[in-house]
Amino acid sequence: MTVYLVGAGPGDADLLTVRAARLLRQAHVVVHDRLITKEILDLVAPHAELFDVGKRPGFSDTQERINDLLITLGRRYGRVVRLKGGDPFVFGRGGEEAQVLAHYGIDVQVVAGITSAFAGPLLAGIPVTHRGLSHGVTVVTGSAVPGATVDFRRLANADLTLVVLMGIRRRRTIARELIEGGLDPTTPVAVVERASTDQQRVLRCDLAQLGEMNVSSPAVLVIGVVAALDLGRVGALAASYAMSS
Amino acid sequence: MTVYLVGAGPGDADLLTVRAARLLRQAHVVVHDRLITKEILDLVAPHAELFDVGKRPGFSDTQERINDLLITLGRRYGRVVRLKGGDPFVFGRGGEEAQVLAHYGIDVQVVAGITSAFAGPLLAGIPVTHRGLSHGVTVVTGSAVPGATVDFRRLANADLTLVVLMGIRRRRTIARELIEGGLDPTTPVAVVERASTDQQRVLRCDLAQLGEMNVSSPAVLVIGVVAALDLGRVGALAASYAMSS
Repeated sequence: MTVYLVGAGPGDADLLTVRAARLLRQAHVVVHDRLITKEILDLVAPHAELFDVGKRPGFSDTQERINDLLITLGRRYGRVVRLKGGDPFVFGRGGEEAQVLAHYGIDVQVVAGITSAFAGPLLAGIPVTHRGLSHGVTVVTGSAVPGATVDFRRLANADLTLVVLMGIRRRRTIARELIEGGLDPTTPVAVVERASTDQQRVLRCDLAQLGEMNVSSPAVLVIGVVAALDLGRVGALAASYAMSS
Repeated sequence: MTVYLVGAGPGDADLLTVRAARLLRQAHVVVHDRLITKEILDLVAPHAELFDVGKRPGFSDTQERINDLLITLGRRYGRVVRLKGGDPFVFGRGGEEAQVLAHYGIDVQVVAGITSAFAGPLLAGIPVTHRGLSHGVTVVTGSAVPGATVDFRRLANADLTLVVLMGIRRRRTIARELIEGGLDPTTPVAVVERASTDQQRVLRCDLAQLGEMNVSSPAVLVIGVVAALDLGRVGALAASYAMSS
């Protein structure tokens, strides 16, 4: 009677934690998001039931229904794994699910995963901190939510790296607000599409060009001096393209 | 002839990635920091050589000597693992090591790890982002380095969670500067000592009390409304103490 909120990392099954891989093999039922890769779901035992809450009719985008499903399954099965891309407590809404489950008396254990906010840059050869270039890093989402929209002018800080998840659609606004906030228009930017998958693609530009970049979701935006770095190989996955226009 | 810069995560061997665990078993030689746990080093094959660059005379704190050692080993052995606490590209100086190795023509692969900046809060039951409470998270170190000391006044932002690594010694200054920058003195703070080890301890207070807290390194400071949350069980490790004075 335990629901495990488990981080799946950026997509590559090799970047699961040892604990996450074991829990997937032992789970009676797995409730997962749409972006979880087949390679990861292949670890689940054949007799276990899979719920894709990104695809089942009525489940997409409806956190309340996901919560209800977790409560129902948590009461019925011994080991439920709720598998989330990245880390459950970093933009994963894991906190909300943990609160609801605890409220209904269901045991919750949370297992950290590698967040795309840091794996995305790393897989593009970018350290989010680097001596002399970046003292720290801020991670936000770019999606506009009523009452929760980030004012990027307040995040303009040349000493820190800025990582934006889910920021592709609003990239023009993000760039404009950062420049209005005082960030140099020539600040390097890297866009890491589908990090850690075999479709990973890295595009680089400067902040003033970001609005014109032809990129697609899911992608991680990395903004700051470190975004010009390209360190370490990351296997055969990462192809790096410079913006030519 | 490859040096793998590998993140070891917060300390628990179960929180290694699948790739990191495999690389440790296959390594010919492992160069590790002082804080790497015995449980993790036990994965290394018996015939492999171990270098503790936190303890060997002359190596502590001398990045140049660590670089020289990595170059020497990278030329001599097929598979060198350079194991770092957390993630190599998040305050790990992995970027510097990758640059040096590449300069000497040695292949470098970087393997992401779970950063203590996020695992620390998670293991204390704290989601660093939470709908309605925190839109994002900033991670910095608290250590004072000439020319690189963070001005915490600029990081006072009630919409974001602030995570400070290596901030225990300067906690009084950090709290004062954050309050001077506009953060409410009653902002919740959690101090997570030795996250993920069997000595993990979580202390909670408010920002104005932080300077008086009796805490020890290594610890992660979590500052923001979410620091008052305590969600999910994390096994038997985490004992939670409230500050009583």
